Amino acid sequence: MVTYNVHVIIENKPGISDPEGETILNDLVLKGTCKTISKISTAKMLKFTINEKDKKTAEGKIQEICDELRIYNPMVSKVTINAFD
Amino acid sequence: MVTYNVHVIIENKPGISDPEGETILNDLVLKGTCKTISKISTAKMLKFTINEKDKKTAEGKIQEICDELRIYNPMVSKVTINAFD
Repeated sequence: MVTYNVHVIIENKPGISDPEGETILNDLVLKGTCKTISKISTAKMLKFTINEKDKKTAEGKIQEICDELRIYNPMVSKVTINAFD
Repeated sequence: MVTYNVHVIIENKPGISDPEGETILNDLVLKGTCKTISKISTAKMLKFTINEKDKKTAEGKIQEICDELRIYNPMVSKVTINAFD
């Protein structure tokens, strides 16, 4: 059994507006000196520590848990799961 | 100029408690069938799209903005910045 760190990134689907990111961009960043930034979007991240036999099983298990427990809303959010050993 | 995607991960410093992660672990995950998970911590993520001449400049610029605008609280949070092209 190997200990994996699994990163779960929950972000809005394309087309769903992200007022928090837009506000940081328009009302904070672009009013300052840095004009090279064109977009900011926000996301939520969960970091799991899990013991599994391989990376794929670890990612699959976490995906299952996130779906089952409704950790995110599949109507509006998309989820990206990556395991690191 | 290259367009970089810069990921900013804001998480609690070690030693600062994370009630949200603890609750997901103890009250949701460990009450289910999966007992191989030993830790869950939460983080906030911001994704910047920036035009800069190289990766290092892009990361430096974003670090500067995050510090200047107090995007995170340096007393309790640590920030990790990674640029991808």
